[in-house]
Amino acid sequence: MTDTPDTHTPHMQRALAACRRGIERGQSPFGACIVRIENDKPNILADTHNHVRLNTDATAHAEVMAIRDACRSAKSIHLPGATIYTTTEPCPMCFTAIHWARIDRIVYAARIEDAQRFGFNELTISNTTMKREGGARVELIADVMRDEAVALFELWQKRGGVAY
Amino acid sequence: MTDTPDTHTPHMQRALAACRRGIERGQSPFGACIVRIENDKPNILADTHNHVRLNTDATAHAEVMAIRDACRSAKSIHLPGATIYTTTEPCPMCFTAIHWARIDRIVYAARIEDAQRFGFNELTISNTTMKREGGARVELIADVMRDEAVALFELWQKRGGVAY
Repeated sequence: MTDTPDTHTPHMQRALAACRRGIERGQSPFGACIVRIENDKPNILADTHNHVRLNTDATAHAEVMAIRDACRSAKSIHLPGATIYTTTEPCPMCFTAIHWARIDRIVYAARIEDAQRFGFNELTISNTTMKREGGARVELIADVMRDEAVALFELWQKRGGVAY
Repeated sequence: MTDTPDTHTPHMQRALAACRRGIERGQSPFGACIVRIENDKPNILADTHNHVRLNTDATAHAEVMAIRDACRSAKSIHLPGATIYTTTEPCPMCFTAIHWARIDRIVYAARIEDAQRFGFNELTISNTTMKREGGARVELIADVMRDEAVALFELWQKRGGVAY
């Protein structure tokens, strides 16, 4: 399948919709989905939002939740050929989880510095740095629908969201 | 409480015992425990091993499992004042999970390069680098009972363990 700008839009929209569902449940403004092309059709392996407060689990970021769901769905700890769409550039925890799961590609909307600007206690290491320093092979595609993701941070803030 | 060499030994022994329980269950050779001094006594908030294969979950490293358990036990996403004892230097996923959970201190036995030598697909970023590049405040104590942890990698290998 050849990538066009429109290849990513429907999947990022799905991640943004998951993010919005999370905000409606009082969760932090992060959504992710994992997609793999199987028999020429996209198979959605996971589609979820941040559950940190809901589950009282510091590790329950959207990407980690999506990887757990996708591993269960695929009955495998490795997800070769998959792409993760995430509304914010993965933090180093999520980047490394993606590496362990052997996901091929990360497509993200907002950047770590956007999350920081809204008060999240991010480690200041970009995915580009993680990839270079760590020797990861994952492909990175940045800034897909970034404005839409930032708008969801604003919605979350307007509703009284508190960063951690 | 003042640290002496013996401060860490009983807690690292607990992490090593968890690692050994994991090996006996066919899991990868990693154990962790989380301890917090409460009313002058150590409270064990979590004590577990790697569950990646058992749970079909690429994120179920010993440290992540321990943080999930400790958050649930403490009814909080933040664990200030806690120390995590882990049989191997946390990978960047686990290091960052520890940061998100606001754990104060990491005490580890084997190093990331030991895990690599036994075949694990580690990103080559040490905790020292993660701390410096990411601006983390966590305290790092290395090489506590490293030989004992490496001996458990050897036991795991002898029993036919397969790295991922």
